[in-house]
Formats: sequence, C-alpha cells, structure tokens
Amino acid sequence: MLFDFTYHNPTTIHFGKESLNHLKGELLNYGETVLLVYGKTAIKKNGIYDNVIAILKDAGKKVVELSGVMPNPTYRKMQEGCELVRANDVDLILAVGGGSVIDCAKGISVSAYCDEDPFKKYWLESQAVSNKTVPVASILTMVGTGSEMNGGSVITHEETKIKAGRVFPADVYPKFSILNPEYTYTVSQYQMLSGIFDTMSHLMEQYFTGDDANTTDYLIEALLRSSIDNARAALKDPEDYEARSNIMWNATLALNTMTGLSKTQDWQVHMIEHQLGAYTDCAHGMGLAAISLPYYRHVSPHGIDKFARFAVDVWQIAADGKSKEELAKEGIDALEAFCKECGIVTSLKALGATEDMLPKIAESTFILDGGYKKLTSEEILEILKECF
Amino acid sequence: MLFDFTYHNPTTIHFGKESLNHLKGELLNYGETVLLVYGKTAIKKNGIYDNVIAILKDAGKKVVELSGVMPNPTYRKMQEGCELVRANDVDLILAVGGGSVIDCAKGISVSAYCDEDPFKKYWLESQAVSNKTVPVASILTMVGTGSEMNGGSVITHEETKIKAGRVFPADVYPKFSILNPEYTYTVSQYQMLSGIFDTMSHLMEQYFTGDDANTTDYLIEALLRSSIDNARAALKDPEDYEARSNIMWNATLALNTMTGLSKTQDWQVHMIEHQLGAYTDCAHGMGLAAISLPYYRHVSPHGIDKFARFAVDVWQIAADGKSKEELAKEGIDALEAFCKECGIVTSLKALGATEDMLPKIAESTFILDGGYKKLTSEEILEILKECF
Repeated sequence: MLFDFTYHNPTTIHFGKESLNHLKGELLNYGETVLLVYGKTAIKKNGIYDNVIAILKDAGKKVVELSGVMPNPTYRKMQEGCELVRANDVDLILAVGGGSVIDCAKGISVSAYCDEDPFKKYWLESQAVSNKTVPVASILTMVGTGSEMNGGSVITHEETKIKAGRVFPADVYPKFSILNPEYTYTVSQYQMLSGIFDTMSHLMEQYFTGDDANTTDYLIEALLRSSIDNARAALKDPEDYEARSNIMWNATLALNTMTGLSKTQDWQVHMIEHQLGAYTDCAHGMGLAAISLPYYRHVSPHGIDKFARFAVDVWQIAADGKSKEELAKEGIDALEAFCKECGIVTSLKALGATEDMLPKIAESTFILDGGYKKLTSEEILEILKECF
Repeated sequence: MLFDFTYHNPTTIHFGKESLNHLKGELLNYGETVLLVYGKTAIKKNGIYDNVIAILKDAGKKVVELSGVMPNPTYRKMQEGCELVRANDVDLILAVGGGSVIDCAKGISVSAYCDEDPFKKYWLESQAVSNKTVPVASILTMVGTGSEMNGGSVITHEETKIKAGRVFPADVYPKFSILNPEYTYTVSQYQMLSGIFDTMSHLMEQYFTGDDANTTDYLIEALLRSSIDNARAALKDPEDYEARSNIMWNATLALNTMTGLSKTQDWQVHMIEHQLGAYTDCAHGMGLAAISLPYYRHVSPHGIDKFARFAVDVWQIAADGKSKEELAKEGIDALEAFCKECGIVTSLKALGATEDMLPKIAESTFILDGGYKKLTSEEILEILKECF
C-alpha cells in the first residue's frame, strides 16, 4: 500500500571543499545580528571558528555567541540562547557543529518568543508553532543526525529528566547548511563509525516496514550500499575525500524525509537506544548497532520478504535455491560481519552497560507499533540480553 | 572526482489519491487572480478541469484561462499568457497538464514583466531573471519531463525555428505541485512507455559520466531499477496504483537536480532526439530509446568501468569471470531486451523517419562534450543509421 505524502524540503545545501565561500552571500539575506551557536573547543582548535568569525565581520554582522552546547543539549542551555535572542534582537541563528548544536539552534528559534512553557507546548504536546521564529542556518562539522536538512530537535529537560524529540515543519528547517567533508577529518575513527551506523540505522528503521516495493525502498537500498562501500574506503584512508563526502551526503539524505516517504517507519531501535544512552552515555551509533542485530533477528520472521530482499539487494547475496528464511538470516549475518570488520561495537558490555541496567532499560523504553511486530517489555529485555 | 554543488529544491509536492485536497489550502497563500494554463481537451474530458474550477471558486479566486498549450509550447502561446497576466494583474499561474504546460507557465512567469525580448534574454543568452516574476504551481497529468519539480522550460520560437531550453533557478520552480497517479491512467500505453523511457534516459544521461562511485550513482541505479520493475507491473495492469505511483515519482526524482549532483552529465542523446523530433514529431521517449542503444554501444568502450557496473547493479547480471567488455555489452543488450519486451520502439523508421532525413538530423544536432567521448557529426550519422 502506497500512502499519500507531502514532501517539502526548502533547505539550501552548499556542499564541498569551497562551500564556506557561500556563507557571505547567504548572510546578506538576513539582518545585522547573528547568534553564533557552537559546542566546546573543537571549532576553535581546528580553525573553523576563526574562519567563520572573519566572514561574519566581513559581512558587517554584529555577533553574539552561545558556546558550550553539550552532546545532549539541555533545556537550560536552550533558554540561555533564547535570552540572547531577545536581548539582542537576533536576525539569524548560525549553528556551527554537529546535530546537537543544530537541534539546540532550532529549539532557540521556536522558543525565544514563546509566551508559554516552550518545552511543554512544542516538545511534550507537539503543538503547532504560533509565535515569531528566528531563521536558523548551519555549518556542519560532524556526520550522523541529518539535522542540517530537517526539522528534528531533541532537547533534554534536566529537572524532569525527559529527553524529548520533535520534528518541526519546513519553516523551522535550516535556511541553508554548509557541508564541507574536510571538516569531518578531525573526528575520531570511533565517532566516524558511530555516525555511519547512525545513518544506516536511520535507513533501516525506514526500510523495514511494510512489504511494499516502492521507490523509497530502492532509494534506501542505494544509500545503504553507498554507506557500506564508503565506510570501507574511509577506514583504509580517513582522508579519502570522496569516501568522506559520500558518508556526509548519505547521512543528510538518510533523514531529510525523502527516505521515509510513504513508509510507516519503525524507530523502535532508536527508542531502546535512547534509554541505553540514558544509563551508559555510550556513542549513539554504537548503541544502535548493538541493539539492531538481535532486534532484526527477533522481528525478521514477521517481515520475511523484506529481510530476504535486504540480503539480495543490499548485501548482494546470491538468492539461488535459498528459502526466504535462509536469505533473511544471511542478510543480518552480513550486517553483523560488516560491523565486526569495521570495528563497530556490538556488545552492550563493551559500551559500558552492566547486567543490572538491562531490566531498567527495558522497562523504561517507549514502545512503538514497530515495523513488523509490536514488542513487549519482556521481549526488549530478551533483545538486550542477546546483545549484552 | 567529486565536485562541489549547491542543492536547493523548494517545491512542495502533494502526492497521492487525495492530493487535490491540498489545493484549496495552498491557494490561500496567493492573491485573488489565478491564470489557469492547460492544453487541449483532455482535462475537460476526464473531469479534472471541473474539479479544479470548483476548488478555485470555493477559494474565492477570479480565474483567467489560457488554453490550447501545445506539446512543444510556442513563444507566441507564451506571449498570449503574458498579456493575460499583465491585463489581469495575475497572482498565481496554475498549470494543469504535462511538462509542456508547466514549461509554458514558467515561461510566462519570467517573461510577463520583462521589458526586453524575453526569448533572447532568458533562453538564448541565459541571463539572470531581473524583473518581477509571478508564482507558478502545477497539477500534473502526464509523466516524464520532471518540470513539476525543477526550473526547466523549453520554448519553441516559430519564426526563427529555434527550440531552446533553459533551467531557471529555484525561485522559478513551481511553488507546489499536485501529483495524483490516477490522473495518469487515461494516458495511452504508448505514451506511458514513452514517459518511462524519458525518465530512464534522464537517469542514464546523468549516470554515464565520469567513473566516480559517488552516492548520486547509487541513487540513479535505484531509480532505474524501480523504473524497470514498475514498467513491467504497469504493463500487466495499467491501473496498478503502486506501479503508476512509482513511475510518476521516479520521473520527478529523475530530474529534480538531486540525481545530477556532482556529475558532469551527458545529454548528447537528448540533443540528437531534439533534431529527430523536429523532423518526425515522434514521441520524445521513443526517439530517445532508439538513439540510446547505438549511442551507448558507441561510447561504452570509453567508459567501460561504468557500463560494466550498469550491467551488474542495474540489470543484476552475474559478473563471475566476465571481462568488463563482456559485462558492458550484456548491460546494453539487457536494456535493448527490456525495450523489446515492453514494446518501446527502437527503430527510427518505425518512428516515421526516412533515410534522407538522417544526414540533416546529424548535421543540425548540437554537439556537447559528451559523458565519455565528444562525437563528430559523422559519428552521429553512423549512430542514426544503426537505429534506422
């Protein structure tokens, strides 16, 4: 069954080695005051901060700064940004960093002029944005979340201990995003691999739903194959520009809504990983990898056609004479072998989990309808034990 | 080599059986007067005209009409639309039809308020648009050109006998396009196949350039495979909704600029077909099919790696033990067998060409750099003879 959909993604992507040259021209479309949002010291060490500041000055901008945005951006940090926006009448929020920094920038955009409690209104109740917003743009330095070309924003409320995600509509997407693959060279191999599996997980969580052989499934297979091939190339040479470029662009396309069109989508693996992350603070992509293998083995009998197709079309496993069950098993085995080959972690113990955490993670996981089967907490616990 | 690129496609796509329900909401974003642009009688026969008029009235719009837009829209017809825009102070141009109607609407948009000769300025000299433009939107009823989500506009100047294409920037793209696959059911099987091969040709002309294994190539392979599989399904049952949906969405994605990112692109086959079309008025996609087979056989030795990959990744031909040359040949043979299986015409004679036309077509063809080899007029004549 093919569902009706609306697709609208107005973000402008400037991609490549010289992409920062587009910044000045883009800045001319906005008023005088720019809020620069970034993380800790990374962009100061690698020189990106100095380059960006020079362009902002050259474009005649007044720059206000919000630094120290953390991996899971907090409501308090976001509120700090909101105060800066109001106090300085900010015209553009420019995020420089990875998904967390961009998520925080979107949060500031919708919350700065919200008269109510924005966390309650926009994240917990998913209400429509009714107040004035501030345009957001980004310069991406880490790969994985796709936040540079979508409306996603995950914010953690420290007092209530709630980490809530929200997908805002297209007018909250970054107006423009600058993607220079060379900026990702300084990320560690471990973080690079985590980002690659995050991309693959986004793709698989959209792919393993329904049996419909629609164009979206073909596109997902293409991006999975590109991710696999380019991961291998980047492991051989971390400064292989083409490999790093494809890895970066795959991550953007994997979550810019195109690969979810007309799909019900799963996202149960992400729900389990969120809770794993709350207990271990492990790298997001590594957590996803560990959970994915037993999860897909568990649900594959309920979507056997699609898992057999996964083996043939993603992993190029010869179908001749094999049953769908055999093919499905070989496909997931190929995914596991790929993880091992690359050094992607597939054990919760290696990610810092202890055995007593498992029941707590299982009980606190938010249960969705699932791509092929709705799990129980007991089944989630089984899955966690299998990848412990 | 991966080139820097900018990607920006702001068109909103409403896709599916109920997509026309979005029209009223979209219309509220524009002023009172709508210029409705359409072809001959088709949309009156199938009821789309009445449905659209009812929604326009319901939204309180004043409707001005430009009808009779022909398959190759003329400069004169476009000027007729420009006069209507100026005389009625039109706020939105709504194209209902296929690529020609949408191309004409974009032409009117940029030309109505142009003080100079718009054909010279915008089509022949590709100057930047410096005057006021009128927003364009579309309701698509035929598949193939991708005009519903790009800036392309091909206009034929009757007096000078010049057919010129131009790709306008994103602010000339349709603001929204409504794609209901059921609207394409009434198109003949011959026209459906022509549209499918048009899509495949767009994809191949972007694919067969360079040897770079980048993400764009993986995406093109995915769309080619979806086109092939869904063509077969639609031939079995022309009202197979999923098949017709995928055929429609593939056509849009094949030319919405995403599948050309970081590719030099070829387009020589289209150049030859333009001249074939000038002499025979054959269905565009059929002309492309006839020319493609000898063209790709001719250039494949110069891009052998890519043609071998085409055989394996698009046609799933087993690579075992075969040379690249053998694989490349098998891939193009598979394309030919697919055409024959579906009833896609691969002979110029069957398309109405006569032998004496061939030298004239060859001589008048505009020669591009080509994906792998720049042809001479003599080579083009050879190619035409091979598919005669």
